[in-house]
Amino acid sequence: MAKQLLGKEVTAALNEKIKAQVAELESRGVKPTLGIIRVGERPDDVSYERGATKRCETLGVAYEKFLLPADVTQEELMATLDKANKDDNIHGILIFRPLPKHLDEAAVIKALKPEKDVDGITDGSMVGVFAGTKQGFPPCTPQACMEILDHYGIDCTGKKAVVVGRSLVVGKPAAMMLLKKNATVTVCHTRTVDMPSVVKEAEIVIVAAGRAGVVDGSYLCAGQTVIDVGINVNEEGKLCGDVKFDEAEPVVDAITPVPGGVGSVTTSVLVGHVVEAAARTLQ
Amino acid sequence: MAKQLLGKEVTAALNEKIKAQVAELESRGVKPTLGIIRVGERPDDVSYERGATKRCETLGVAYEKFLLPADVTQEELMATLDKANKDDNIHGILIFRPLPKHLDEAAVIKALKPEKDVDGITDGSMVGVFAGTKQGFPPCTPQACMEILDHYGIDCTGKKAVVVGRSLVVGKPAAMMLLKKNATVTVCHTRTVDMPSVVKEAEIVIVAAGRAGVVDGSYLCAGQTVIDVGINVNEEGKLCGDVKFDEAEPVVDAITPVPGGVGSVTTSVLVGHVVEAAARTLQ
Repeated sequence: MAKQLLGKEVTAALNEKIKAQVAELESRGVKPTLGIIRVGERPDDVSYERGATKRCETLGVAYEKFLLPADVTQEELMATLDKANKDDNIHGILIFRPLPKHLDEAAVIKALKPEKDVDGITDGSMVGVFAGTKQGFPPCTPQACMEILDHYGIDCTGKKAVVVGRSLVVGKPAAMMLLKKNATVTVCHTRTVDMPSVVKEAEIVIVAAGRAGVVDGSYLCAGQTVIDVGINVNEEGKLCGDVKFDEAEPVVDAITPVPGGVGSVTTSVLVGHVVEAAARTLQ
Repeated sequence: MAKQLLGKEVTAALNEKIKAQVAELESRGVKPTLGIIRVGERPDDVSYERGATKRCETLGVAYEKFLLPADVTQEELMATLDKANKDDNIHGILIFRPLPKHLDEAAVIKALKPEKDVDGITDGSMVGVFAGTKQGFPPCTPQACMEILDHYGIDCTGKKAVVVGRSLVVGKPAAMMLLKKNATVTVCHTRTVDMPSVVKEAEIVIVAAGRAGVVDGSYLCAGQTVIDVGINVNEEGKLCGDVKFDEAEPVVDAITPVPGGVGSVTTSVLVGHVVEAAARTLQ
């Protein structure tokens, strides 16, 4: 039976660190603040926002909402972003995406200041992840994976790690972050031949395929740590990951559940980025 | 005995393509032009420059040299770059690096227009490589590796590819480019455990370790294609690669020699980028 890598344990430890940083910043006269730009009222956005603002409140981070109607013009959106960019009291900016189709999302991302890009969507942040430098911030989901590995003391140096999925938001950055942790990293994807045998060789597996149950028991073996990034709804309407948990859990050494795994850590990572962005303004 | 993948054959084919593009551009009134910014007289720079300008001449690409003394000020260098950036008749800019220590190289790279970054050193180009988009240009060496694979009809889809080395200039971009070609890609490095067994599983091996003879016969087996990026000088004062050619050649299916392999392709890739940069101005 595998050890369960629980998001709530990772989050609790992260939150303690963040609170200490917030206290330190406040003693130096800085109140870390997140600017939230939301266009329209998409339920997913509203729900994520609620989670983020609640987490901010718990951790002593302020937030300011910039709510725009679904039919906002590009000019109005850009002006709002410009205001948040220029406001020294706002340290990080979260922009909900995808934006409605009439808006030029690329132009919006390009206008966002990399040093406020706590969600890791700008070119500057991407270069930071690719080069392994502290430019901008990595996307929250792959960083949540790293936080889980760190929290449970899973050293990556010299380990074989496999990432399933090559998206720009999870797979590729996760591969770069594992490389920085000195793992020997393999990236698999839909065109990989005989994926079960490739995944079976890994000691650390990060699954970000974006499809329920892609990784079943035939991919897994004893000794593995499995981080499941997937969040899907199965036929019974229940949340499930990209890994068949029932087949994985009796076999591998350690695994993140879904829900209660990676997803539950990302909000604290985001708030942590805001605090880090605030700290960087003092450097 | 392995098939030798010869840089000169790849270059000859590339040059034909480039000449046709130049002719097409000239018929539309555009003369592709490379701007070369060189500080000082370092022999390596002068030698590479001679190769590049000769290749430009052969292919009908113009060039303009901006030669600055080794003690040039940051302001003068930036002003020169600004001039080249703004000159619509210059389509690509090559800046020799490393710059002398008194100069701020990061500021120079930051000032270079990504659309003229034919050497792939700006953040914009790095994002292009990481994301797999056509923003900027990839560094010339990893692209030379891809040109060799393409020229010899080596399809990467579904193949296991291993990259030895994780530098920002070769290893990481090569991994991203192989991923775009649908290979299952593994990156090895100095912290990899039992590298011979990892490399032995690959069908395509790109070696960019930066050390002579790192990869010997124990890493290799039948059926492999080996691209050797290394350029080292051995004890006898002869050029040699990162692969022990004498041990590899009897075993693998195909291999690039050193010299005469990857290195000989990079100059044409650079000039090709200048032509592509010129073509993009018409789009």
